Amino acid sequence: MASPQNIHVAVIGVGLVGSELVTQLLALPSSSPFKLVSLSSSTRTIFSATGLSSTWKSQLSASAEKPDLTRLTQQLSGLGKVALIDNTSSEDIAAMYPTWLNAGISVITPNKKAFSGDLSLYEQIIAATRTQTGGRVFNEATVGAGLPVIGTLKDLVGTGDKIVKIEGVFSGTMSYIFNEFSTGKPDGPAFSSVVKIAREKGYTEPHPADDLNGFDVARKLTILSRTISTYALAPTALPSLKSFADVQTASLIPPALEGIPTGDEFIARLPEFDAQFDQMRAEASKDGQVLRFVGVVDAVSGQIRAGLERYPSTHPFATSLGGSDNIIMFHTERYGARPLIVQGAGAGAAVTAMGVLGDLLKLA
Amino acid sequence: MASPQNIHVAVIGVGLVGSELVTQLLALPSSSPFKLVSLSSSTRTIFSATGLSSTWKSQLSASAEKPDLTRLTQQLSGLGKVALIDNTSSEDIAAMYPTWLNAGISVITPNKKAFSGDLSLYEQIIAATRTQTGGRVFNEATVGAGLPVIGTLKDLVGTGDKIVKIEGVFSGTMSYIFNEFSTGKPDGPAFSSVVKIAREKGYTEPHPADDLNGFDVARKLTILSRTISTYALAPTALPSLKSFADVQTASLIPPALEGIPTGDEFIARLPEFDAQFDQMRAEASKDGQVLRFVGVVDAVSGQIRAGLERYPSTHPFATSLGGSDNIIMFHTERYGARPLIVQGAGAGAAVTAMGVLGDLLKLA
Repeated sequence: MASPQNIHVAVIGVGLVGSELVTQLLALPSSSPFKLVSLSSSTRTIFSATGLSSTWKSQLSASAEKPDLTRLTQQLSGLGKVALIDNTSSEDIAAMYPTWLNAGISVITPNKKAFSGDLSLYEQIIAATRTQTGGRVFNEATVGAGLPVIGTLKDLVGTGDKIVKIEGVFSGTMSYIFNEFSTGKPDGPAFSSVVKIAREKGYTEPHPADDLNGFDVARKLTILSRTISTYALAPTALPSLKSFADVQTASLIPPALEGIPTGDEFIARLPEFDAQFDQMRAEASKDGQVLRFVGVVDAVSGQIRAGLERYPSTHPFATSLGGSDNIIMFHTERYGARPLIVQGAGAGAAVTAMGVLGDLLKLA
Repeated sequence: MASPQNIHVAVIGVGLVGSELVTQLLALPSSSPFKLVSLSSSTRTIFSATGLSSTWKSQLSASAEKPDLTRLTQQLSGLGKVALIDNTSSEDIAAMYPTWLNAGISVITPNKKAFSGDLSLYEQIIAATRTQTGGRVFNEATVGAGLPVIGTLKDLVGTGDKIVKIEGVFSGTMSYIFNEFSTGKPDGPAFSSVVKIAREKGYTEPHPADDLNGFDVARKLTILSRTISTYALAPTALPSLKSFADVQTASLIPPALEGIPTGDEFIARLPEFDAQFDQMRAEASKDGQVLRFVGVVDAVSGQIRAGLERYPSTHPFATSLGGSDNIIMFHTERYGARPLIVQGAGAGAAVTAMGVLGDLLKLA
């Protein structure tokens, strides 16, 4: 059993997820081994080797110190066991992971950038975790937030199971939009009205094109594919993705609306394309099918794709999904007849912070 | 990263699950930290401090040594880091866990006995894991075999989420029987014929009453309830179960067939009771519902029950289940609107062994 307070925790990013994470962390029992020593927002930072407490918000806003990754690295070196939690979506911070890992600092993060961006950064990260002095890296919350996706995948391949295919609805936004738009009936609400309502409810990015381009799904597929290639005991047909741009992604942005600068303009013009979406829905319905924006990692053919596909109205993607749920099906050699399925909310501050904190507990 | 071969592994029980476990273990890459040092069947045992290899089956069958838990404990003491894997369903072996844990030996098992039997044994186990010298205990495969159930539950409650209710189909046998028997239509195959076919396919115990009594589900609910009570950060309304017998379990064995000595006799007489099951199916169907044998752990009311319940034909227990799948829904404070769901095969040697080996990887 770990001794009290023997893991020093530094948190970067105190937005919705970061604040929730700190709240959950400070609510752990006093016997837990974590000591929060550093907090950084985009504008300020605080550090205390003896530990920060529940007054962190006022302390941070009163701090005159600007965040400085180099100084932070120095502060954390020599503290003993250290976990750095990156709650940002910053490429610059992701680029620091190899440095931290090589200094023995473990990294835990919901930030997808390092695992779905340039292959060279990913390779440096994995190489660093394989040295004797290296820290460990955990990224459960990068796919499905608090859902057990990455951990389950690592258990499957790490024990010698062979992935046939991973197939799922990986974007909460896309899930909501198509659960509302395509229910199996030939008609229903206009595509543009569903997107508009999703945006008003805060389910989309301020500019809905940032969801409809499918990049979020492509990033998650990249993470899954690389996880398989890194941890599988036997080689697969999966390609070595140079970045998420290598995923075959079928954007839902009508070509005429590519590059529209604001979300408001985009929403205003989207009704021009409702007829196209109506037609796809009607055609699917004629065959007893629904439309879902899915991601597929096919480890047998080596194909990795994100896009709109049709599923029978009796398929779990049609019957079991609701709200903005994610659903992930693992088709494997051992789960041969029927897949292993994980389903539930795949976004939101509380469940994302939980995914991160769960990783921190595993480190202890 | 762990050094090679620094965890000594002793395996008790080399039946279907045990043999598969050893096969999976020996197939791990040579860089993995495990060294298999001991194997025991119910009649023989072998031990080698330098490690056993793929010829273990012939070595074991050639061994003249009888298994002896006291000698095994002595052999394992002083080896350094040791994991003992119990693949039996023996109460006697389960009773040894506190001794092993107190000797610093970690225990990994799919054996439900220790976690669902007498509360005093369970409490001794947990107490042993909380000492400085104690080994660790892992039991992922006791519920849902290789499905991420126990790990997910520990992550949820360990990070401060509050369980409202866990509800699921926890028995692969019961899943198969009711997926076949009750599809939402008013009629269908006779209950006795479904049980007969399930038995012929090897989905039931030799005596089907050992499945229909619901004890397997009651044991799994006991494990889940105790896991919540042990690891939750805040108290719940769940009672302290003295054993799985405290679970409110509605057996499906017709009272007139209680105590029938053989499975053959049981199957021969079961058709006498088909009319009762037919009627239940017809009544459920009239209300648009199906019958499922479920388990419920209600952490708000404190009720823990196993039995036949009715679910709408649109519910995932009706639409998403098939074959002998398990499905587990976690209703929690953070997963408030819609539950976290895990589904897939919940029995079978390959996936059970995987659940055990996944635990062993976590120890390393």
